[in-house]
Amino acid sequence: MIVRFEPFGVEVEAKAGDRLLDLALEAGVHINASCGGEGVCGKCRVHIEQGQVQGGLSEKISAADAEQGVRLACQSVIQEDLVVRIPVDSAMDKAGLAALASGPAKIAKLIGAEELKEQGRFQPALVKVLVSAPPPSLEDNRNDVARLLTALKAAGEHSFVFDFEAIRDLPDAWRDGDWTVTTTIMRPVDPAKGRNHVIRVEPGDTTARNLAVAIDLGTTTVWAQLIDLGSGEIIGTEGDFNEQISYGEDVISRIVYAGKPGGLEKVRQAAVRSINKVLHQLSKKTQNDLSEVSLATLAGNTTMTQLFLGVQPKYIRLEPYVPSAAYYPPIKAKEFGLELPDHVSTLVFPSVASYVGGDVVAGVMGVGMHRDEALTLFIDLGTNGEVVVGNKDWMACAAASAGPAFEGGGIKFGMRASKGAIENFSVDPFTGEPALVTVGHAKPKGICGSGLIAVVAALLMTGLIDERGHFQVDHPSDRLRVGDDGPEYVLAWAKDTAIGRDIALTEPDVDNLLRAKAAMYAAYMTLLEGVGLSIQDLERVILAGGFGQSINLERATIIGLLPEMEPERFMFVGNGSLLGARLVAMSNPLRGDVGGIVEQMTNFELSVAPGYMDNYTGSQFLPHTEAKTLFPEAYAKLEETKAAIKAAAK
Amino acid sequence: MIVRFEPFGVEVEAKAGDRLLDLALEAGVHINASCGGEGVCGKCRVHIEQGQVQGGLSEKISAADAEQGVRLACQSVIQEDLVVRIPVDSAMDKAGLAALASGPAKIAKLIGAEELKEQGRFQPALVKVLVSAPPPSLEDNRNDVARLLTALKAAGEHSFVFDFEAIRDLPDAWRDGDWTVTTTIMRPVDPAKGRNHVIRVEPGDTTARNLAVAIDLGTTTVWAQLIDLGSGEIIGTEGDFNEQISYGEDVISRIVYAGKPGGLEKVRQAAVRSINKVLHQLSKKTQNDLSEVSLATLAGNTTMTQLFLGVQPKYIRLEPYVPSAAYYPPIKAKEFGLELPDHVSTLVFPSVASYVGGDVVAGVMGVGMHRDEALTLFIDLGTNGEVVVGNKDWMACAAASAGPAFEGGGIKFGMRASKGAIENFSVDPFTGEPALVTVGHAKPKGICGSGLIAVVAALLMTGLIDERGHFQVDHPSDRLRVGDDGPEYVLAWAKDTAIGRDIALTEPDVDNLLRAKAAMYAAYMTLLEGVGLSIQDLERVILAGGFGQSINLERATIIGLLPEMEPERFMFVGNGSLLGARLVAMSNPLRGDVGGIVEQMTNFELSVAPGYMDNYTGSQFLPHTEAKTLFPEAYAKLEETKAAIKAAAK
Repeated sequence: MIVRFEPFGVEVEAKAGDRLLDLALEAGVHINASCGGEGVCGKCRVHIEQGQVQGGLSEKISAADAEQGVRLACQSVIQEDLVVRIPVDSAMDKAGLAALASGPAKIAKLIGAEELKEQGRFQPALVKVLVSAPPPSLEDNRNDVARLLTALKAAGEHSFVFDFEAIRDLPDAWRDGDWTVTTTIMRPVDPAKGRNHVIRVEPGDTTARNLAVAIDLGTTTVWAQLIDLGSGEIIGTEGDFNEQISYGEDVISRIVYAGKPGGLEKVRQAAVRSINKVLHQLSKKTQNDLSEVSLATLAGNTTMTQLFLGVQPKYIRLEPYVPSAAYYPPIKAKEFGLELPDHVSTLVFPSVASYVGGDVVAGVMGVGMHRDEALTLFIDLGTNGEVVVGNKDWMACAAASAGPAFEGGGIKFGMRASKGAIENFSVDPFTGEPALVTVGHAKPKGICGSGLIAVVAALLMTGLIDERGHFQVDHPSDRLRVGDDGPEYVLAWAKDTAIGRDIALTEPDVDNLLRAKAAMYAAYMTLLEGVGLSIQDLERVILAGGFGQSINLERATIIGLLPEMEPERFMFVGNGSLLGARLVAMSNPLRGDVGGIVEQMTNFELSVAPGYMDNYTGSQFLPHTEAKTLFPEAYAKLEETKAAIKAAAK
Repeated sequence: MIVRFEPFGVEVEAKAGDRLLDLALEAGVHINASCGGEGVCGKCRVHIEQGQVQGGLSEKISAADAEQGVRLACQSVIQEDLVVRIPVDSAMDKAGLAALASGPAKIAKLIGAEELKEQGRFQPALVKVLVSAPPPSLEDNRNDVARLLTALKAAGEHSFVFDFEAIRDLPDAWRDGDWTVTTTIMRPVDPAKGRNHVIRVEPGDTTARNLAVAIDLGTTTVWAQLIDLGSGEIIGTEGDFNEQISYGEDVISRIVYAGKPGGLEKVRQAAVRSINKVLHQLSKKTQNDLSEVSLATLAGNTTMTQLFLGVQPKYIRLEPYVPSAAYYPPIKAKEFGLELPDHVSTLVFPSVASYVGGDVVAGVMGVGMHRDEALTLFIDLGTNGEVVVGNKDWMACAAASAGPAFEGGGIKFGMRASKGAIENFSVDPFTGEPALVTVGHAKPKGICGSGLIAVVAALLMTGLIDERGHFQVDHPSDRLRVGDDGPEYVLAWAKDTAIGRDIALTEPDVDNLLRAKAAMYAAYMTLLEGVGLSIQDLERVILAGGFGQSINLERATIIGLLPEMEPERFMFVGNGSLLGARLVAMSNPLRGDVGGIVEQMTNFELSVAPGYMDNYTGSQFLPHTEAKTLFPEAYAKLEETKAAIKAAAK
């Protein structure tokens, strides 16, 4: 269906169920809105001229106005073609509006259980096998394990190793299950070489319940996903901040802390607590008991991995930057403090180098770069950013220390992309009045990574900040002011927030974003130069990172984070680390691919790479010091908008 | 050298350093001695008529007597030929004495490191490999494990799995050792199938220190041995009671206790405490730190094994007597509570059946039955006795519940064969006065298993107890009396003991020994009948059991514990379980043999075997109801002695 916004004449495609305010923001149509979409500020009044919306009424709208078609945009749900008129408080013309418009992010179709099934690769490492046996007698009083082996062989299973715990539980399991038990088997990576590990026995038939948890242990956030290994269904996903943040926001400060007496164990326990917290949230939200989990997979960068395992990470930080190991054996989850059953092993993703860790290996595996002909640039946007270029024949990688800005860290009112986080934004260049959309359409609490990019891009486009990230504090709007941390823009007044304080974006916040995006840009540009390629040679760019899913391509190129290329060539995969961790839980063949990826990757040390500092310094601008040549479209759009605003102001 | 005892004219071979009292007792020459050989009672006065002894003087001997050649037999050390006159308080003639005489036990030459080396089988599963590497640089900053792998390959080692702990310790080990580390590797049983496990890394060169502990977890006693895996030297051996005794003296009562809520863990912890106590004794006595231990091996009967591992043993006790498993995977010593370093794995011996456990498998392996043509009867004398018959081609086994008497358990003044335990004994049939020798020649504290057999055999020979084990309480000696537990014989008066109470042997004690020996006898006889063999078919009898080394063949046949056959065909191996545990630590090829032994053994359930009850009931006599046909020599000797005593008494 089509929605036309008047008086600008902007027409956009919409889906039934879209909210009118969200749609306007995506289309670059500004509607004042300061409560995040909760419907309480009553500012986003629009006039529905043709068609009907669902909802949109409120005590803020008088019966007479309602009769005239006045609605709150944030409460109006689209169900048919509409013509909507926006009350214009300032005088922007169509040209300016069109320039501000940007489409939604393009989400990659992620590989899932269905695709794996089609490819015959939905083969979880953990399977449950139901067996029965005749009860023992004086004539046949073989031991309980011998009885199980006979039954397993009859079920077509061969070549076993028994975990101690399975032996321990077997006597009661056989008898409580009246000589029927469910055996949980962990397959070897290579059936030709390894053996099947019997890791658990349960009385009776529990084959319907076989879960795995995939864990992404990020520097800033921890994510976990509960997976049904029978169906491949993702039962739920939960995330939270990594409590290690209290020992430092970046890996370096945590490595330093871990080097102090007792420090390593403290930092380790913080990670363990964070993971356990998320696992319990997952269990509670999805109403699944963690006792039904058979397997855990965990991906994290090299430092996160070593800190979780309690392996002293200090040599990661010291030249020549040596990690302890690429591969770790499967570890017992419980021994490392995870509140999962005794029998659960954790498969920890291997690392390539000190700053290219298991999270990147998981992401690359998850998107299938190692099986694909297409020349791909993989960008993992995160506190520790990593870039990989290559295809099924070769891969090169490099690391970038971006800092936590992309995940809402190090930002005065930064937060994760949870309820109340400002995630979309536009601003009226004349009044300085914002339109805010928050996650869950709740009162604003703070700003998340994708919101930060949206805000900075909009402020840049409207000239409220300049190319260096400086605020136009002489603007007539009192939202632009000098606060405790210097110049700032007030996103929401205290009364409109959930926290009772003004929520503002400060100049240091913008600086943090600038450094983060410059680090990422310099990383992929230097890596490409290192292998003799340019942006134009790439067949696709895959963006990973917890917040990658919600950033808007146009805004990301406007600020110079992403390179300018056809939008069709970009794909967002979201949390690549979590994706890989999930796929390994679902597919033993993919688990087998992991080692090959590690062996295939060549690591570039950017700190000693020629050109890195030039790329970094040039990118400390919005979008870049060489914007005219490197970001020609963004440059043109910024110029065009500037001119339009100037014209309208006359 | 030769020692002649007058007035009896008994001549015996002696070695320099033998004590005169011990030699007399072995020769069947009675000398009154009540303090255990400590030299304080002054009763064992003898007259040295020819030659000189070392020592033997005491304040109990006047200067004038000393001048005349009077010495204390217990303090006199032989150094040359002697003629010794015993003051005769009663009137036994030579015939009686000769009948009482019995030679020392024949000790088997145990297989040890030297034999293994000759056979090329001294190949410990645990080896230490010293490697060095160039330090990393920016040009070569591979991870620490990759660097170690290269170094190991250069040292001729291949195919690895790293234990997590080794990876964890490697970063510091490389650097603390200045790029030289000692790697502890655990070899697979089968090098063609398994991989080398790197279980530990240490900075610098520690290859000179590589220890193992072999543990025998017995129902009554726990033994441990410290072994140098470099040289094969046995550094030390220590033993102590199993604290589980407080939960019942036999396996059945412990199984029952373990079935109560929380019971299993309590019983388990008692075993763990007992082992740890012995390990610490071993460490202290030998001045070796347990941190240098790389491997532990553990053998115990099926119940002991399950209790130690915390595997519910209740189905062992209930018909049809099913154990949980034959084989257990190597377990981490520390996880099971043993106070050994993190990296130490414990190899637990597999069981054949509920009552034929890892201790028997260890013993059979230790004596090499599975590699020998000779048809052998292996008898493990212990609280849980087991018998095995066969050779390298076949083996059959059975279990006997003997009770703890052989290990000093269930006996009023019973104790382990430690300092102060009465281990040798003779008695004057007329006065009832004893000769006691204790372990360590200390004041008597109690009586150990071999002492019990010596005492009962001597009392039987002298007619102080009859064939049913009843005491001759109308004997003129006040040592034969009726005490709190019925008829008893006072071995030592309170004043002569280390415990300040009369130490006596009671009729219930004799009953316990009778039941124990009857259970063993019935077990091997029924097993032999079951496979269609008789005693005469056997090429050798191997006696195992902690106390087996010190029992005297003749006494053991007099009481009907062991069958009558040529003494040359008997071999004593002592603690077979500990022997096997030690050999497995020293020899990976022997470790590989263990599985074959388990597969080869056929278990006989004696409880349902025809003939068992007849054999048991007949053996509840001393030596047997059918003594004349089954124990003709013992029968003749008893008759002869009876007649001699009768003659002398006239």
